[in-house]
Amino acid sequence: MKLSCLQENLAKGLNAVGKVVGTQTDLPILSNILVKTDEGRLKLSATNLEIGVNFWVGAKIEKEGLVTVPAKILVDYINSLPNKKVNLSLEKNVLKLSCEGNRASINGISAEEFPLIPEVKPEISFKLKSEILKEIIPEATVAAALDESRPVLTGVCLKIRGDQLKLAATDSYRLAERTITLPGKAKKEITAVIPSTTLKELLRIIIGDPEIREVNCLVGRDQIMFDLGEGNLVSRLIDGKFPSYEQIVPESNKTKAKIKIEDFVKAIRTGMVFSRDAANNVKLSVKKTGEIEIKSTAVQVGENVSVIKSKVEGEGGEISFNSKYLLDGLASIPGEEVTLELNDKLNPGVLKPVVEKKYFYIIMPLRS
Amino acid sequence: MKLSCLQENLAKGLNAVGKVVGTQTDLPILSNILVKTDEGRLKLSATNLEIGVNFWVGAKIEKEGLVTVPAKILVDYINSLPNKKVNLSLEKNVLKLSCEGNRASINGISAEEFPLIPEVKPEISFKLKSEILKEIIPEATVAAALDESRPVLTGVCLKIRGDQLKLAATDSYRLAERTITLPGKAKKEITAVIPSTTLKELLRIIIGDPEIREVNCLVGRDQIMFDLGEGNLVSRLIDGKFPSYEQIVPESNKTKAKIKIEDFVKAIRTGMVFSRDAANNVKLSVKKTGEIEIKSTAVQVGENVSVIKSKVEGEGGEISFNSKYLLDGLASIPGEEVTLELNDKLNPGVLKPVVEKKYFYIIMPLRS
Repeated sequence: MKLSCLQENLAKGLNAVGKVVGTQTDLPILSNILVKTDEGRLKLSATNLEIGVNFWVGAKIEKEGLVTVPAKILVDYINSLPNKKVNLSLEKNVLKLSCEGNRASINGISAEEFPLIPEVKPEISFKLKSEILKEIIPEATVAAALDESRPVLTGVCLKIRGDQLKLAATDSYRLAERTITLPGKAKKEITAVIPSTTLKELLRIIIGDPEIREVNCLVGRDQIMFDLGEGNLVSRLIDGKFPSYEQIVPESNKTKAKIKIEDFVKAIRTGMVFSRDAANNVKLSVKKTGEIEIKSTAVQVGENVSVIKSKVEGEGGEISFNSKYLLDGLASIPGEEVTLELNDKLNPGVLKPVVEKKYFYIIMPLRS
Repeated sequence: MKLSCLQENLAKGLNAVGKVVGTQTDLPILSNILVKTDEGRLKLSATNLEIGVNFWVGAKIEKEGLVTVPAKILVDYINSLPNKKVNLSLEKNVLKLSCEGNRASINGISAEEFPLIPEVKPEISFKLKSEILKEIIPEATVAAALDESRPVLTGVCLKIRGDQLKLAATDSYRLAERTITLPGKAKKEITAVIPSTTLKELLRIIIGDPEIREVNCLVGRDQIMFDLGEGNLVSRLIDGKFPSYEQIVPESNKTKAKIKIEDFVKAIRTGMVFSRDAANNVKLSVKKTGEIEIKSTAVQVGENVSVIKSKVEGEGGEISFNSKYLLDGLASIPGEEVTLELNDKLNPGVLKPVVEKKYFYIIMPLRS
């Protein structure tokens, strides 16, 4: 192998693939990146067996070749170099690099052992603009479970019916759902559970590379591929039935309050000084007059009551939430105002944007 | 107690005193702040028995009183409030606070148990501008030991002889010394070892409060007080003899290289990708021609050689250092260039600013 490319391009490619490495000590090659000449470009690949990422970088290839080298060393090394021409060559399994005044050797492992990143046989495909993905991925993943006790809850449920695409997630304490309209009707209905780590990795890559303007999503039976143009991300789908969450979405409400998000967030944060050692419990009293009392108590330490103004319709009432989940929800709501819909203190509350957008964030009450 | 003051002023005072709290669980009152009316102002005090800080805040006092309340809760709570008038009052040992829409109660402990922050009987005093302190404190503390195995090395040695003030610190791997000239001759010679945590706390306070333009330093036998105008910081001095470090300061050098700090730092950082798992060992080869080779090796992983340009006087040579200590030293050197003075690979190297400034940073070599 002998080639040269610009540090900037190489760094971009490595930063795209470099986070998806395995930590399994019994398969050390998974912590490596596959570096390979491929039809006049340099192909970089990494996989942790759940997610695999390929990225192609423009390069001047003088001699074909391939090798795998430790991801962390390669990524950090290339990131530390100036934005000049980087020369790469291979001597046995040692990757030689030079760039301006810097020359390095990195010991690699033969590429033969590197696992294949599978191809996806798509049952359906659709394109989404990066701008839309940057909106809907955080809106959905915010509610996904982090602990693996129920694997299906660590995923985001993708549903396509006609021209409607829904992304939903729930960790059983809160639930978020976003709906968007596709440009055309999909050929078939589909339901798939995508690991939320996959969507977060996709988001990280498109945030890091503004040249990716559109992503082609190819959904297969067990796998999904996101085609980024310069690269792609392939992930397994999560096996198992996503809970039929539709039944817990309240159909009506007895109280509806329109609140300035900034005021609401400040009052919750002030209260959290007291509630952080008390399961973040915060008690809301929504008054017909429009005042909302936000009360946090720390036994033996003290308490705080903050009062904010809102526009209230309906009978008002009291309910307790986990402040952290409330803040997560408010952070996912676009615009300056939020609508909080309540029934009673035993039933979930619903946060919705006031700006027209098909999104809601449901939060289960705490017993107070 | 009944009083009111501006949130901004209260927050400034609390942020000044609030970091100096004790963590001893057998003396829970040390994690509290003493809040006390004092001659028309509000006095805030905190101590961990090693360092004590007092700060006075302008307030409208309606009724005298005093109490201690948990520092973390009070500081975080006041910081979370809007910059409006804060009302404080005391009911039994419960501190009541209100500010705009927020009302809190914080359970306190009677002030009787709060330890007295001692007065200092000064043997000598001198004034230093905050701007100078912001320079010399980091320059000296950078080389102080963090581990407590030899307590005297965790301190900074203050020496005053005539109009010369020296601050020096060493953890036995590196040594830093800064000299400044006082406006007048001191009445007597003095040597004192100040805990570097005390100086860092002083630095934190003056960085956080631009109104503190000058600090009056009063050195006593066992204690030092920094009078900040609006407040003061009292600290014990460290008992024990500071090592006579003067003897390890090289009197001459065989090689002297003038290097651009930015180039040097970049090359060391690039090398650290390899050396971070190898005790950060970096080997410098200074050539008569002016080139400096900076070599880092990670056994079984690989290596890097970066070449930078410099102006070399003398015979040149090789020496190994700990990259981390080298970077710490370079970060403490003002200006764009540094002078590196070497003798041979068994003797310390010296970093000095090229801009006129009485400062040096000595670094012990590693065996390579």
